[in-house]
Amino acid sequence: MNAPAAGRLIGVGVGPGDPELMTLKAARALREADVVAYFAKRGNASHARAIACDHFREGAIELALGYPVTTEAPKDEAPYKDAIAAFYEEAAHDVAAHLDAGRTVAVLSEGDPLFYGSYMHLHVRLSQRYPTEVIAGVTGMSGCWSQAGAPIAQGDDVLSVLPGTLAEGELARRLGETDAAVIMKVGRNLPKIRRALTAAGKLDRALYIERGTMNGSHCVKLTTRDESPAPYFAIVLVPGWGARG
Amino acid sequence: MNAPAAGRLIGVGVGPGDPELMTLKAARALREADVVAYFAKRGNASHARAIACDHFREGAIELALGYPVTTEAPKDEAPYKDAIAAFYEEAAHDVAAHLDAGRTVAVLSEGDPLFYGSYMHLHVRLSQRYPTEVIAGVTGMSGCWSQAGAPIAQGDDVLSVLPGTLAEGELARRLGETDAAVIMKVGRNLPKIRRALTAAGKLDRALYIERGTMNGSHCVKLTTRDESPAPYFAIVLVPGWGARG
Repeated sequence: MNAPAAGRLIGVGVGPGDPELMTLKAARALREADVVAYFAKRGNASHARAIACDHFREGAIELALGYPVTTEAPKDEAPYKDAIAAFYEEAAHDVAAHLDAGRTVAVLSEGDPLFYGSYMHLHVRLSQRYPTEVIAGVTGMSGCWSQAGAPIAQGDDVLSVLPGTLAEGELARRLGETDAAVIMKVGRNLPKIRRALTAAGKLDRALYIERGTMNGSHCVKLTTRDESPAPYFAIVLVPGWGARG
Repeated sequence: MNAPAAGRLIGVGVGPGDPELMTLKAARALREADVVAYFAKRGNASHARAIACDHFREGAIELALGYPVTTEAPKDEAPYKDAIAAFYEEAAHDVAAHLDAGRTVAVLSEGDPLFYGSYMHLHVRLSQRYPTEVIAGVTGMSGCWSQAGAPIAQGDDVLSVLPGTLAEGELARRLGETDAAVIMKVGRNLPKIRRALTAAGKLDRALYIERGTMNGSHCVKLTTRDESPAPYFAIVLVPGWGARG
């Protein structure tokens, strides 16, 4: 007997949280997929699954890929790096087994698959070996500025996407020389982000957003936000519109 | 008689070009809208209309908003600025007339409405006066890197969105200090962009994309792209993935 033809790998962006912000193409891909895979912290439900599950076809095989570690572990140290690399290798192996059996595997990704998404770790390991398609999705940041009704960038604006993990001086410098900014990974970096925005003269324009487009979403001017701890996935926006006068 | 309650303004992102990359929410908004408005250069068909028109409800009123000028006019000079400001005022006035009559008006926007979109010019003029909603869309840049299968940014990467209109030295400097970049408004700036990428040591990683996710789309390594003129809406991507070794 011949081995079956290899299945297709599809990276599916499911958008920022509101299930209606999935694309028509993502919904179709899920209706057609034999296997739906998704990442989640071990022991936690997958956000991406919750967004997309209404579109899974009956009888689809679900493949949960459970992260072994939390975002709080020291990421620059070898034990973390080794554990996460081994995890992605194992996840790619599990997905490949379904592809080798001829099954189409849709891998869910919150937001857009190739924009800071975990799917990328499977893509770089598998896309050279299997027919692969990536379905773009609405990013979390688009969901946030849309919810806030905040025009983020126009015309010849420079837009910078910055991780809140940058050192304070570098964050302030980069904020000072961009027209618009999106600061991700806010969490415990919020006090530092506030200081950097102040140094750059942009604190008054900044918006703070939690759970953009999801239930319980929350958008305020950063100046009115208190000092209590922020969730890791909160984001800060500095709209460029109007900044040039 | 009482005046009717004002209608709703909805900024609808229709995505990067592939009609299937519209969101479920955008499709629903179009099915429900009394009026569908869209921008286009005068005398040209609207790209956004072509992407979305299968979802217009029967009998919907179409409102074409025709730009008086081309992208080739000198944008820093008063005649251009005056003409374009007057055009947006008139467009807002035309949309407001439908809102005042109690009609829901969906304004189409290629990509995402608040990310370099013309819809913003209506939003800033009308959203304080009428109930307004913005439906996020897949951006043109997401469509491009998905089509290219190019992981654009991960982890703590800095991503810079840069207009190709920047001066060569500034473009080179900004390219030199970002992990990942998207260069928009390529057009006749392509030779300059190439020189700036070379100066930043990133030419080898750059991808050149025309018409991402549309019919006739085209993605190549920039080093293999010839020197013939590029379309205005071509984009250049510098993926960050792997750049940190």
